[in-house]
Amino acid sequence: MKATAKAHTNIALIKYWGKRNEALILPTNNSLSLTLDGFFTTTTVDFQENLTQDQFMLDNKPVKGDSHQRVTKFLDLIRGLAGKENLYATVHSKNDVPTAAGFASSASGFAALAAAGTKAIGLELDNPELSRLTRQGSGSASRSIYGGFAEWEMGNKEDGSDSFAVPIAPAGHWDVRVAAVVLSSTMKKVSSREGMKRTVETSAFYSGWIDSIPKDLVEIKDAIKTKDFEKTGSIAEANCLKMHATTLAANPPFTYWHDATMRVMQTVQHMREKGIPAYFTIDAGPNVKVLYLPEDEETVQQTLRNIPGVTDVILSKPGQGISYL
Amino acid sequence: MKATAKAHTNIALIKYWGKRNEALILPTNNSLSLTLDGFFTTTTVDFQENLTQDQFMLDNKPVKGDSHQRVTKFLDLIRGLAGKENLYATVHSKNDVPTAAGFASSASGFAALAAAGTKAIGLELDNPELSRLTRQGSGSASRSIYGGFAEWEMGNKEDGSDSFAVPIAPAGHWDVRVAAVVLSSTMKKVSSREGMKRTVETSAFYSGWIDSIPKDLVEIKDAIKTKDFEKTGSIAEANCLKMHATTLAANPPFTYWHDATMRVMQTVQHMREKGIPAYFTIDAGPNVKVLYLPEDEETVQQTLRNIPGVTDVILSKPGQGISYL
Repeated sequence: MKATAKAHTNIALIKYWGKRNEALILPTNNSLSLTLDGFFTTTTVDFQENLTQDQFMLDNKPVKGDSHQRVTKFLDLIRGLAGKENLYATVHSKNDVPTAAGFASSASGFAALAAAGTKAIGLELDNPELSRLTRQGSGSASRSIYGGFAEWEMGNKEDGSDSFAVPIAPAGHWDVRVAAVVLSSTMKKVSSREGMKRTVETSAFYSGWIDSIPKDLVEIKDAIKTKDFEKTGSIAEANCLKMHATTLAANPPFTYWHDATMRVMQTVQHMREKGIPAYFTIDAGPNVKVLYLPEDEETVQQTLRNIPGVTDVILSKPGQGISYL
Repeated sequence: MKATAKAHTNIALIKYWGKRNEALILPTNNSLSLTLDGFFTTTTVDFQENLTQDQFMLDNKPVKGDSHQRVTKFLDLIRGLAGKENLYATVHSKNDVPTAAGFASSASGFAALAAAGTKAIGLELDNPELSRLTRQGSGSASRSIYGGFAEWEMGNKEDGSDSFAVPIAPAGHWDVRVAAVVLSSTMKKVSSREGMKRTVETSAFYSGWIDSIPKDLVEIKDAIKTKDFEKTGSIAEANCLKMHATTLAANPPFTYWHDATMRVMQTVQHMREKGIPAYFTIDAGPNVKVLYLPEDEETVQQTLRNIPGVTDVILSKPGQGISYL
């Protein structure tokens, strides 16, 4: 009863920013992402009859506390689905997601855990079922089931049964690149979870944000389909700015941006003025991700590396969905 | 037929950000400001029978083009009120508003011009009448008629007759200080006028902004009345962040912030964490104004001067309304 799975992280081009149900992790809007080849988690789950509790090893170190509890809680869901409530597992995870890159390893982590865990226990889930399950570990992880572009449909049902990701275009459809720009100072005062909650509950602009998403989604899906990079990038960048603007209107207001974040944003806009199509997006933290095309890789990389406060630039291509090893 | 008047600029604590009528300069929301002692314009208007057109001298240099036309157009309003359509004037203005400080000299400029011009031509306007007239030269100038704290009431009438500023508390009511933080790079790609227009017409968050103003106004007026600095500063800072957030949701999105702007904002928040009550506000440009109390002047000034990218810090006390020299 052992299985190994690999899953890649993803970067949201239309952001997930707000929950309608905290316990089930049901979002207030659809989101859309690109799965990234360069950042992944490999997880082995081994259910064993003789265990009296779950064991979780991350990068060969035993994990206790909150992270362990989150994994155990997720394995409870898998055990529940399989009708094997008293079967515990050892979980070995290896993260190839540099922490400094500012990607949440929870996306690749929970996707790999869901895939390996369900296979190990003998469940045969299709992708929508697997995505729905994964969502309950980490919202954005629901999109990492698929390679390339994927959309997490928020759904309307109270029980979350219609809230899962669907594929939009596979990794091979379009070679759009992403540079993860690592900043020297990445301190974050408000966690994503807390920031999301405060925004939903207090931001004067939250309803404006929600109302604006459907149009962004229709347009970016059309742009992805037709491989219109300028349109895809513009919509993603504007959507990111809107998401971050909602935090400025929260009570109390807050921002994830640092001064170096602002410099990277300005440099990207400056590249465009010079004729290089590049667009940024930023998650709930100070780091910036830059979208560009393969032919501009050298210029984009060099330009980003020269920004004061940037310590590293990590490049990635579109990645595949979950796979079993 | 000659008169000289002096008017101070003001800093908005609740921002004016959007016009419902471009020609009459009628705003989409009430705004509230503090008039500042340190920044002023002195203007002499001399109507003379022998002139065939207006002459405008700024800091002893003749002004042509758009600025001249804006002054002439404003003098037309004064001539119209006085029934003296063919009487032209020489206008001498002296700005004691350092351009680099990032204050629009139009606020003190049009308030001084309105006061000197109406007196020179023999009109006797009360303050609301003078404020209503001044508004048609520059919206924010309508508030500079008064010293201390003033509120510009947007009014509802189509002709703008009920859109003028009223006094909230005189300069002597409360010694709140303002530091104008001058940045080395102050380039601005989108003018205030254009930014305001684009925001009103395209921002997903514009209605959220408008809806949030009445509460801010009620609360800040209460805080000013009771001299609650923490409350006054918090509301002003949050209102500024909301205003700037509206531009991030415009189409295309834009921002007035630079990386140094972000550093100043973060430093101010850091001062608060260290127990020094200081709050920032930012108009349609990269410069930052910091509100503080007299007892913290030395610390605040030194802290701001030490921020990389800050070239000067100019301090001011609350200022008086218009006066005649």
